[in-house]
Amino acid sequence: MPIKKRLEILSLGDELLLGLRDNAHLSYLGKELARKGLYIARDQEIRDNAEEIQKYFLDAWQRADIVITTGGLGPTADDLTREAIAEALGLKLVSDPDAVASIHSRLADMGRKATEVHLRQAMIPEGAEILPNHNGTAPGVWLEKDGKILIMMPGPGNEMRPMFIEQVLPRLEARDIALINEAYLQLRTCGIPESELEPMLLPLLEPYGQRLKVGYSTNMGIVDLRIGATDDSLSWNDIENLGESCREVLGADFVAYGDSSIAEVVVAHLRSIEKTISVAESCTGGLLSSAFADIPGASKVFRGGIVCYNNEVKQELLDVPMDILEMHGAVSAETAVALAAGVQERLDSDYAISVTGYAGPDNGGPDTAPIGTIYIGYASPAGVWSRKVFLAGNRRHVRERAVIVALDWIRRKLKKYDSLVSAPSQSENVD
Amino acid sequence: MPIKKRLEILSLGDELLLGLRDNAHLSYLGKELARKGLYIARDQEIRDNAEEIQKYFLDAWQRADIVITTGGLGPTADDLTREAIAEALGLKLVSDPDAVASIHSRLADMGRKATEVHLRQAMIPEGAEILPNHNGTAPGVWLEKDGKILIMMPGPGNEMRPMFIEQVLPRLEARDIALINEAYLQLRTCGIPESELEPMLLPLLEPYGQRLKVGYSTNMGIVDLRIGATDDSLSWNDIENLGESCREVLGADFVAYGDSSIAEVVVAHLRSIEKTISVAESCTGGLLSSAFADIPGASKVFRGGIVCYNNEVKQELLDVPMDILEMHGAVSAETAVALAAGVQERLDSDYAISVTGYAGPDNGGPDTAPIGTIYIGYASPAGVWSRKVFLAGNRRHVRERAVIVALDWIRRKLKKYDSLVSAPSQSENVD
Repeated sequence: MPIKKRLEILSLGDELLLGLRDNAHLSYLGKELARKGLYIARDQEIRDNAEEIQKYFLDAWQRADIVITTGGLGPTADDLTREAIAEALGLKLVSDPDAVASIHSRLADMGRKATEVHLRQAMIPEGAEILPNHNGTAPGVWLEKDGKILIMMPGPGNEMRPMFIEQVLPRLEARDIALINEAYLQLRTCGIPESELEPMLLPLLEPYGQRLKVGYSTNMGIVDLRIGATDDSLSWNDIENLGESCREVLGADFVAYGDSSIAEVVVAHLRSIEKTISVAESCTGGLLSSAFADIPGASKVFRGGIVCYNNEVKQELLDVPMDILEMHGAVSAETAVALAAGVQERLDSDYAISVTGYAGPDNGGPDTAPIGTIYIGYASPAGVWSRKVFLAGNRRHVRERAVIVALDWIRRKLKKYDSLVSAPSQSENVD
Repeated sequence: MPIKKRLEILSLGDELLLGLRDNAHLSYLGKELARKGLYIARDQEIRDNAEEIQKYFLDAWQRADIVITTGGLGPTADDLTREAIAEALGLKLVSDPDAVASIHSRLADMGRKATEVHLRQAMIPEGAEILPNHNGTAPGVWLEKDGKILIMMPGPGNEMRPMFIEQVLPRLEARDIALINEAYLQLRTCGIPESELEPMLLPLLEPYGQRLKVGYSTNMGIVDLRIGATDDSLSWNDIENLGESCREVLGADFVAYGDSSIAEVVVAHLRSIEKTISVAESCTGGLLSSAFADIPGASKVFRGGIVCYNNEVKQELLDVPMDILEMHGAVSAETAVALAAGVQERLDSDYAISVTGYAGPDNGGPDTAPIGTIYIGYASPAGVWSRKVFLAGNRRHVRERAVIVALDWIRRKLKKYDSLVSAPSQSENVD
């Protein structure tokens, strides 16, 4: 086990405090660090103001063993991080020849000449090492001083993320600060609330006491369980075996190890059995199609989708009989079935899913059904079924949840079919 | 002008530091406060640990005039905020009778009885006032002490946001800390990079010097300009007039005042001329449809969409001739035109847009076109056109940018048509 280190983050940039964008770096770094057994003790978002940067940096530097900063390394006047922190540490800034060369060559590739402003980015605190930036001109900085480590990375995500993975993590591993292996195993579940999951798994997890770190997180009906060792008495193999025991208890509620989305699990399953799928949706408006299209290589199984925001479109493109729409309404089990069967035939796919419902706020149901009422249709080579669910929340939330419920239904159906025709398979594990 | 106050935020919760979710509260509060002329000086994300909460709270309390905390007010054991902060301030916790009554009645509505654990949430620091929570059991806290203000709100977004708007903002306005009016005017633009926008508007903005606060923010090709007064010498009317002058200079690049999305502007325009639209998309996989379906009331103009992830679907559902697909490929100007014309006819809409392209990573173009090559088709009652664009970035980024480029093209087309047939109109201003 590596030595426990206290790690703090400083996120620089006025835009984070003005509500102009979310600080996605924090959740990214939090997750990547946790994977390697490192935990963030505190994050501070601060303004592009030299005095405040110095004050809060020194506060973090005194308490922490490792300080990571993001942002403020660019060439413009409000990029103050480099100067402010060097001054706080009482270090001079010196020009790094490798960084100078790399800035010249990067700009030359773009047919431009480096100016003094660009070359400011090659200035690093004396004694520091540069972290090359393959996706931008501003290099990062790695500095070890007084038994502590300072890591400075640029703000743009497409520069920071590869730098963290390629340059920072290997250095932390080499110093035995980050684990070489993963720190925890994640089991993704769907269809069971955290409050029921916890007591269900307790008999398996409790015997390990303090030796096991257990965490749950819930998002849109998906609950992730993370298990990891807190000391050397539990090996990675022990964790994996425990994961398998949890998986058995979870049954059909187990989606995958790791971060796979439900759509990824469904696509992997369909690829393994060489079947295709299509989608018909009204209230989800394209989100269900997009969940499939999001996945690289999905075109092998995803034939396409029809967004039918209108009864005429349902009739003409999907052959939903006018009788059904008039008698049962567009939001009904009958329509969901007709949509799934219609798109399955029209797009000539083996499977199909449909979603129809009231997502609110004002296209709400008549007397029949309140906002949040959703019908899902599922068509397979064996027949067509429908299911009704009620989802609370605002329009966006209802639509996003409806997509997950629809995907999870076909995931379960495929899994069940699979377990009927073959030995227990691992095809749902796509990570 | 209200007196300038220093405001700090404390965001509580281990999950924020473990990468389990983004801190969406910070960008929400940042934006809502900025609207009212208040700016966050610093945010700290800290763990659910009593000692650390006290230490970092006191640090913020000493420097700031207003401290807002989110999270940690619930009934469970890791909800420590209330106790930790009361202790840091040397205040006893007392039970608030109104809060007790409201917890009893809320649980009774759900057919449950309040336990001691639930009633812990009614404990507030002595001298504080409760902020009623209409969407959950944990009330918020408002405390004025030593000329400073402490505001504690619950963590769930659906509880925190209404509490902030309904309870916190009016109190800040009443104390002349938050502006009654909006603090700035936002002009949304598309199609012009920030680096070109700045010099274009400089002649209009520069004469105001320090009296005017100007901010730009860029996201996915959309650049927002915010202008606001820094003192009483500029009235809201002056700001609005200046906004109009900027709008004239911006011409077709002006999208809307405020936060309207491009899809909202297009839908509002189509509603005003009583025309309909439909969509055919391949690489964007449902995102373009979803941009329309996202908008409440869109069903009046949005007829639907077809996600054609497959050449057969393009042929059969959208009548794209096999000749075109074979001769020019699925990613071509000819196919984009055929898709737009096909969906316009099939879904019987007045207008239609199509998107076809290579979003990567592996369904990349053959010799003809690299990943990021996108063709957009546009069909109107007057004819069909296509446009080629090249978008850099990863798969997700290319797809999201393609949606914006497509929407912005039809927005410009509609605006142009509008200005030809009628006097300059304000129909694109939907906020």
